[in-house]
Amino acid sequence: MINRADTAWMLVSTALVLLMTIPGLGLFYAGMVRKKNVLATLMQAFSLCCIISVVWMIAGYSLAFTAGTPWIGGLSRFMLHGIGAHIKNGVDVPFIMKESSSTGITFTVPESIFMLFQMTFAIIAPVIIAGSYADRMKFNAMCVFSILWSLLVYAPIAHWVWGPSGWLANLGAADFAGGTVVHINAGVAGLICALVLGPRRGYGYEGFPPFNLTYAVIGAALLWFGWFGFNAGSAFGADGRACMAMVATQMAAAGAGISWMVVEWIHRGKPTVLGVISGAVGGLVAGTPASGFVLPGGALVIGLCAGSASYWGVTGLKHFFGYDDSLDAFGVHGVAGIVGAILTGVFAYGPLSASSTNPTGIVPSIHQVIVQIETVLVVMLWCSSISFVILKIVDKCIGLRVTPDQELEGLDTALHGEHINL
Amino acid sequence: MINRADTAWMLVSTALVLLMTIPGLGLFYAGMVRKKNVLATLMQAFSLCCIISVVWMIAGYSLAFTAGTPWIGGLSRFMLHGIGAHIKNGVDVPFIMKESSSTGITFTVPESIFMLFQMTFAIIAPVIIAGSYADRMKFNAMCVFSILWSLLVYAPIAHWVWGPSGWLANLGAADFAGGTVVHINAGVAGLICALVLGPRRGYGYEGFPPFNLTYAVIGAALLWFGWFGFNAGSAFGADGRACMAMVATQMAAAGAGISWMVVEWIHRGKPTVLGVISGAVGGLVAGTPASGFVLPGGALVIGLCAGSASYWGVTGLKHFFGYDDSLDAFGVHGVAGIVGAILTGVFAYGPLSASSTNPTGIVPSIHQVIVQIETVLVVMLWCSSISFVILKIVDKCIGLRVTPDQELEGLDTALHGEHINL
Amino acid sequence: MINRADTAWMLVSTALVLLMTIPGLGLFYAGMVRKKNVLATLMQAFSLCCIISVVWMIAGYSLAFTAGTPWIGGLSRFMLHGIGAHIKNGVDVPFIMKESSSTGITFTVPESIFMLFQMTFAIIAPVIIAGSYADRMKFNAMCVFSILWSLLVYAPIAHWVWGPSGWLANLGAADFAGGTVVHINAGVAGLICALVLGPRRGYGYEGFPPFNLTYAVIGAALLWFGWFGFNAGSAFGADGRACMAMVATQMAAAGAGISWMVVEWIHRGKPTVLGVISGAVGGLVAGTPASGFVLPGGALVIGLCAGSASYWGVTGLKHFFGYDDSLDAFGVHGVAGIVGAILTGVFAYGPLSASSTNPTGIVPSIHQVIVQIETVLVVMLWCSSISFVILKIVDKCIGLRVTPDQELEGLDTALHGEHINL
Repeated sequence: MINRADTAWMLVSTALVLLMTIPGLGLFYAGMVRKKNVLATLMQAFSLCCIISVVWMIAGYSLAFTAGTPWIGGLSRFMLHGIGAHIKNGVDVPFIMKESSSTGITFTVPESIFMLFQMTFAIIAPVIIAGSYADRMKFNAMCVFSILWSLLVYAPIAHWVWGPSGWLANLGAADFAGGTVVHINAGVAGLICALVLGPRRGYGYEGFPPFNLTYAVIGAALLWFGWFGFNAGSAFGADGRACMAMVATQMAAAGAGISWMVVEWIHRGKPTVLGVISGAVGGLVAGTPASGFVLPGGALVIGLCAGSASYWGVTGLKHFFGYDDSLDAFGVHGVAGIVGAILTGVFAYGPLSASSTNPTGIVPSIHQVIVQIETVLVVMLWCSSISFVILKIVDKCIGLRVTPDQELEGLDTALHGEHINL
Repeated sequence: MINRADTAWMLVSTALVLLMTIPGLGLFYAGMVRKKNVLATLMQAFSLCCIISVVWMIAGYSLAFTAGTPWIGGLSRFMLHGIGAHIKNGVDVPFIMKESSSTGITFTVPESIFMLFQMTFAIIAPVIIAGSYADRMKFNAMCVFSILWSLLVYAPIAHWVWGPSGWLANLGAADFAGGTVVHINAGVAGLICALVLGPRRGYGYEGFPPFNLTYAVIGAALLWFGWFGFNAGSAFGADGRACMAMVATQMAAAGAGISWMVVEWIHRGKPTVLGVISGAVGGLVAGTPASGFVLPGGALVIGLCAGSASYWGVTGLKHFFGYDDSLDAFGVHGVAGIVGAILTGVFAYGPLSASSTNPTGIVPSIHQVIVQIETVLVVMLWCSSISFVILKIVDKCIGLRVTPDQELEGLDTALHGEHINL
Repeated sequence: MINRADTAWMLVSTALVLLMTIPGLGLFYAGMVRKKNVLATLMQAFSLCCIISVVWMIAGYSLAFTAGTPWIGGLSRFMLHGIGAHIKNGVDVPFIMKESSSTGITFTVPESIFMLFQMTFAIIAPVIIAGSYADRMKFNAMCVFSILWSLLVYAPIAHWVWGPSGWLANLGAADFAGGTVVHINAGVAGLICALVLGPRRGYGYEGFPPFNLTYAVIGAALLWFGWFGFNAGSAFGADGRACMAMVATQMAAAGAGISWMVVEWIHRGKPTVLGVISGAVGGLVAGTPASGFVLPGGALVIGLCAGSASYWGVTGLKHFFGYDDSLDAFGVHGVAGIVGAILTGVFAYGPLSASSTNPTGIVPSIHQVIVQIETVLVVMLWCSSISFVILKIVDKCIGLRVTPDQELEGLDTALHGEHINL
């Protein structure tokens, strides 16, 4: 049966997640680059929002969410074929995900909104990656890379973890709202991009002062707001679990913001606004896999860990290896994603995920932690190797990186013929 | 019966559409004007939001949505008289739109939220017009023009297309969320404003570089987000049709963003961020009349057409005739609105609008296309002639245009005594 | 019984109110300070959002909303202990507020979302206060003051007015969405901060031109949008009362925006964008206590009064007494809050708040007006005295104010080592 209250909440959640993409993540990133690259950074977020929507419609959704093999879905929803059939003569027909028992979800919303909700996740993943190659990737190469990555990396992994009979789902992986599917996945892809493209000109020698952190704060605040749709929407209904997921999201973000702020205050002598917003985003990331499984206390601890871990990710880890992950796609999304994925196995509270088919729900255990780690490693392995191959092919065919002159000039004028008139 | 789930969704939709007005459209416009006019542009959006709310409360709603003649509603809801009667002793009393059978809508939400949802449409229409006369209209003239336009142009047309026994509704016009009522209407009024006020000083000789396209991108992104309330809210319930309308909205926007980007890339050598956001807005406009009638594939095609058409509207068409529609109210909202209105008759999928009184729903036919064209022409004719008369009267009484000195100085300081301190 | 539609609406409302905090109020304030303090102002909003979340989780919620004495709640929800018990084996268990009969609310949503919704109110209150001490308070002192204020001022007052058997609730105080609990409370605390900290250096001698009013407009627009969650969410369900509350919110904001604009136009010769947004915020504040009790006409009158009163608050009143309430936390929130609280007793429409236990609802009467005034005075007295004591203690221990050099340099670089790179 279609439940209109659940449908109302999914409509809202979908809108909220989309808000994360362009004004949220786009502004968060745009506020951290130099003035000459602000518009190009926004262009990446906006154009990816358009492009991946169409990619998802054509084949991404079908590959990820139709029954097929445990490895990849089929093409029965190619071009969203048949998705209109859930309305017959003005009456809503329920959507049954074939073989969905493995995912433990019984759907009470029309398939169209399930598809669109998942589309927003598919959009945000490549936008996250954009943080790693900021300031130096060609626009056409970015488009081609993102399309291939969406089909060859994102869609399969979404199928494994969330799809009907996906093999990682069968293994027992607990990823409530995409900590692994979206954040670790995108973070690792970002790391590979940073390594393959190489650092920005002058990296390590000159500073890259952010143009206007106001934009980054607006972006982070909209991310926080939109993330409620991401996490609480992943309950696929307006129930107690969605409410607890929203609470967990809030506590993880708050804890991580405080955690980063305090660590930075001690370490560098001053708390920064860039720090507290980065920490909060790290907490949102770490809370993502856990949000439907943990109580507020667990979420707070996850946040406190994630904030410190992300701080280490963008300072210690990055400087130790020397790669130029420009806006810390890996440092924040990758590192905090891993923290959250593993701690989900530590803080899970059974009754939140209990159901008639699984009366105990996901509970803390060594076994669950191992499954979580296995899932993380599998995703990292697939993502890094396929992302690497895609990048190499795109580089061979059209080149990945702008010319040194274009980089010096700035992508705004060099690639798009526009600039900010201040 | 009041359905609380539908009510929840209408509460959200209303809030979303209001978000479109000031930070959405206001910022979209403010990002495209010169620095000296940014605050004045925001002032137009903000003050219209206040003023039209009161106009709608006093008489606009009553004229548009109460039963009267096919030409205009009555005054039974003057000052929203009686709208509180839908709560009796703390219990919700259902709202029955008199003679609403012609519109095919049975309401399951309180009248108060229906009224407020419609208010947001009434607000956004004159804010759209503001794009055409940017940088040169007197503030007091703008207020008076917008009030008269709202009562004499918007309210009657809303009644014709959506009101009980409205004559265009009786004709069979299909306008799901205001493609004709809001966008063509406002776009044409904008064209008349541009013609009557004449071009900005220096138009054609000097460039008018946008101050800060970042604002325009934030604005466009908020428009995209808020538009989900506009279109999916027009299902007046959290049902499958609302979900499909949201999908259609997404695909139309995405398709149009890509379409404009590609055409511009080919035509001018570089894709611009101003292009992709303008295209997406054009797609949102074109998807508006269609959103509750078409499948995702139809919406995508409508978007692809609308993106290219809007590009032509703001380049070819505008330059051919030489009018100065400053921020392309007609070029985007008018042109894309016409594309969407007509293609609604081409891509309509019956089951989405089927009901017990109309078991086939709106289906593609030559007849439907002709009805759509007739509706567009009627709206253009009424809107252009009445808008022209209002402008001429206002010009006679208080003058429409600022002095040349004020225009040179910029409206921010000249009209409002404020400026941006960068 | 848990009602999923009501739950969906509370999920949305909570997200909306959180949106008010950082990008809403944060930007509203950040747009009004000088360039050297923009990031520090945003830092206050963002860090308070993190910190108060944790304070509320640890003890604030329990003190405010568990049964205890009429003066303060107990610690049964310390660390949100037991809040997860509302989900048993995946099934939602209803939340019954002990002794809630005095508040007239029967809950149909899980306690977790009720707690989170109330958390957003607890967050926004100290963020409002931040407007009064902008540009001169030490960051660590701000953190400590806000934590103590939240526990010693906010939580008790919330308990008195909204808690089970709260003594002001028993008295019959009508405060629908926090006009007294949030706005008067924060406004008065802001006044005390302004008096204790003293004016900014140069106050009265030099101007403090706002850096970029664009931010203030975005902020005000997001406040308007988010306020729908604040006010319509306070119906705790998606019913007719929520709809009327949303209408009342819109009309109060619109009326007050117009009112300030017209008064300023007459008084100073030009309407300003800073004026219309300040007026609208004043209207939102004044509509807050009234929103679930009044009809649209009453809300419009309240807005018209509040807009003019706020204008007087930030011009006449402030200049007469000579305190430096930098961004008018008291001038807008305090003054408009008092106007709204009192007029709630004048315009209340019984059927909106009628229930089986109170069949007439809140109706206009001298008695109700007196109760409203008493409530306002009690809150002002408690808030001002306790806030004063907290400030004095914090001043003694760590000092409240930055050094004159830091103030001259600007808080962005002095306290946070960051600045805007324009």
